Amino acid sequence: MRALGYYNGKFDLLENMTIPMNDRVCWFGDGVYDAGPCHNYHIFALDEHIDRFFRSADALDIQIPVTKAELAKLLNELVVKLDTGDLFIYFQVTRGTAPRDHTYSRAPGNLWVMMRPSKLDEGKEPIKLITLEDTRFLHCNIKTLNLIPAVMASQKASAAGCQEVVFFRPGGRVTECAHSNASILKDGVFYTAPADNLILQGISRNHMISACGALGIPVVEEPFYLPDLFEADEILISSSSKPCLRALEVDGKPAGGRDPERFEAIRSHMVEEYYRCTE
Amino acid sequence: MRALGYYNGKFDLLENMTIPMNDRVCWFGDGVYDAGPCHNYHIFALDEHIDRFFRSADALDIQIPVTKAELAKLLNELVVKLDTGDLFIYFQVTRGTAPRDHTYSRAPGNLWVMMRPSKLDEGKEPIKLITLEDTRFLHCNIKTLNLIPAVMASQKASAAGCQEVVFFRPGGRVTECAHSNASILKDGVFYTAPADNLILQGISRNHMISACGALGIPVVEEPFYLPDLFEADEILISSSSKPCLRALEVDGKPAGGRDPERFEAIRSHMVEEYYRCTE
Repeated sequence: MRALGYYNGKFDLLENMTIPMNDRVCWFGDGVYDAGPCHNYHIFALDEHIDRFFRSADALDIQIPVTKAELAKLLNELVVKLDTGDLFIYFQVTRGTAPRDHTYSRAPGNLWVMMRPSKLDEGKEPIKLITLEDTRFLHCNIKTLNLIPAVMASQKASAAGCQEVVFFRPGGRVTECAHSNASILKDGVFYTAPADNLILQGISRNHMISACGALGIPVVEEPFYLPDLFEADEILISSSSKPCLRALEVDGKPAGGRDPERFEAIRSHMVEEYYRCTE
Repeated sequence: MRALGYYNGKFDLLENMTIPMNDRVCWFGDGVYDAGPCHNYHIFALDEHIDRFFRSADALDIQIPVTKAELAKLLNELVVKLDTGDLFIYFQVTRGTAPRDHTYSRAPGNLWVMMRPSKLDEGKEPIKLITLEDTRFLHCNIKTLNLIPAVMASQKASAAGCQEVVFFRPGGRVTECAHSNASILKDGVFYTAPADNLILQGISRNHMISACGALGIPVVEEPFYLPDLFEADEILISSSSKPCLRALEVDGKPAGGRDPERFEAIRSHMVEEYYRCTE
C-alpha cells in the first residue's frame, strides 16, 4: 500500500478513508498528534514520540483508547503494510464523536494513523528563513491540531521562497518555527529556547542537545532574541523528519555559516544515530 | 429529518455523514465557520452571518466554493428538510482535501452545513460566570475551527457549575467569553470591548449596540477591565443563540443585577426583533 489511513480499527488506502462528521476534530480541531520518520520499516525514537503523544493528550484531558505498548504494537503492525520502509509515521487522537458542543463528556477518543513514503532530509542542503511575529496561543508545548497560524506562516515562508519561519514574541524572543525548533551556535556554544509553553519540545531538539553533549559543545537552554539569531555563527533548524538543517539566509540577508565544523559534527552525529537505530 | 449534515453537495442525517480523512480540517483544524438561530424556518440575520463567514474565509485565504447568494439559497433549501423550524444553523468551509502539508494550493474549499433543533434562549434565566486568563491566539476576530482553548475553558466553566467564561488578557483587559461576547452596563452607559483582533465581532453584539441606540443608552466601544466587570451594574453575555443573557455571579460572588430596567429593555428589544424578523 502506498499511503495508509487508519481510524479506530479500520484501515485502507489513505485516500479511501473517511471519518464521521461528528468527530470533534471537525468542529473544534479537538485533538493532538505526534509524528516521526521511519527507515527500513523501523520507526525512529518511537517510545519518545509515544511518550510525548500521551503527554499532549493528558494536558488536554483527551483519553487515548490504547496503552503505550498497544500503540507501539499497532504502529509496528501497520508499518509493514506499506510498499516502502522509508516513511512518515503520523498518529493522532481526537476527543471522540459527539454532537457539536464546546463542553465534552470524558470518553475514549478516536485513534488515527497515517503513513506515507518519506525519506529523511539529511540536512546537506542549506535552507532560507523568514521571521514573523508569533501570534499563536500560549499552549505551544502541546502538539495540537489547532494549526492555522502554522499553516498561514508556512505559506508566507513558501511565498517568499523560504523553507521555514522563525517566530518571535513581542520583545523579540525567538520561540520556534512553524513546524521545527530553532537553535543557534555562537562562539562554540549551542543555544536553544527553553522547553516552556512557547515551544514544542522537539524530539530532534532533544537529540540535538544530546549530540552536543557527546561532542563536548556546551548547551544553554535559555531564551535568545532576534539579534542573536541574525548574528549567530550557525542557525540549526530541527524537526523529526529534518533533524538538522542549516539556515544560511534570514529575511533575505545572509546569516550563519560561520562555524561549519561544529554544524557538520552535529548534523552527521544525528544522521548517523538515525541510520544506526533503524538498521 | 432531525439533524442534517451537508458536505459538498451531499446531505443526510448528521450521524450518517462522513468526510474524507484528508480534509484539511483533520490535520490542521483548517477552516472557518458561522452559525445562527432559525425560527419558523426563517434563518435570523442570515446576510450578516454570511458576510462575516466570507470575511473569516478571506482573512485566511480560504476559497468558499459558492457565492453569498448561492449559500443563502442552499441554506434556505436545506432548512425546510428538518422536522422543526426552530433550529441551530451552522456552516463552515475547510481548506480543501489534500495530503497533509502545512503549505497549501489555493483551490475551492469544502462546504459544510449542519442543522439541528434548537430554540432561542430568551435570556430569562440568569447565568453564572468564571474568569480565566485569555491564552488564545491573536486572531480571535476570525471565526476559525481552532477552538481547543474555548473547549478547555468551557469545560472549566461547566465543572464550576457556570455557563460561560470571561477571558482577560495580561493587565486584566476583558476580551470576550469562550463562545459569547461580554458587555456591561455602568451608570446607564453600555460598555463593550472594541472589535479588534482580541474578540469576535458578534452579530448579537452588533444587534445589542443597535438596541442600545434605539433605547437611548449611550454606547462605549473601548477596552474595559476585570474591576469594571466585578463592579458593573449589569453584565450582559451575548451570542447568536443566546442573544442577551444576564450574569448575576462571577467567580462565585454576586455581580451585576443593579440596573434591571435597562437590562430588561435591551433583552426584550432583542428578543422581539428576533421573533419579528422570523415571523
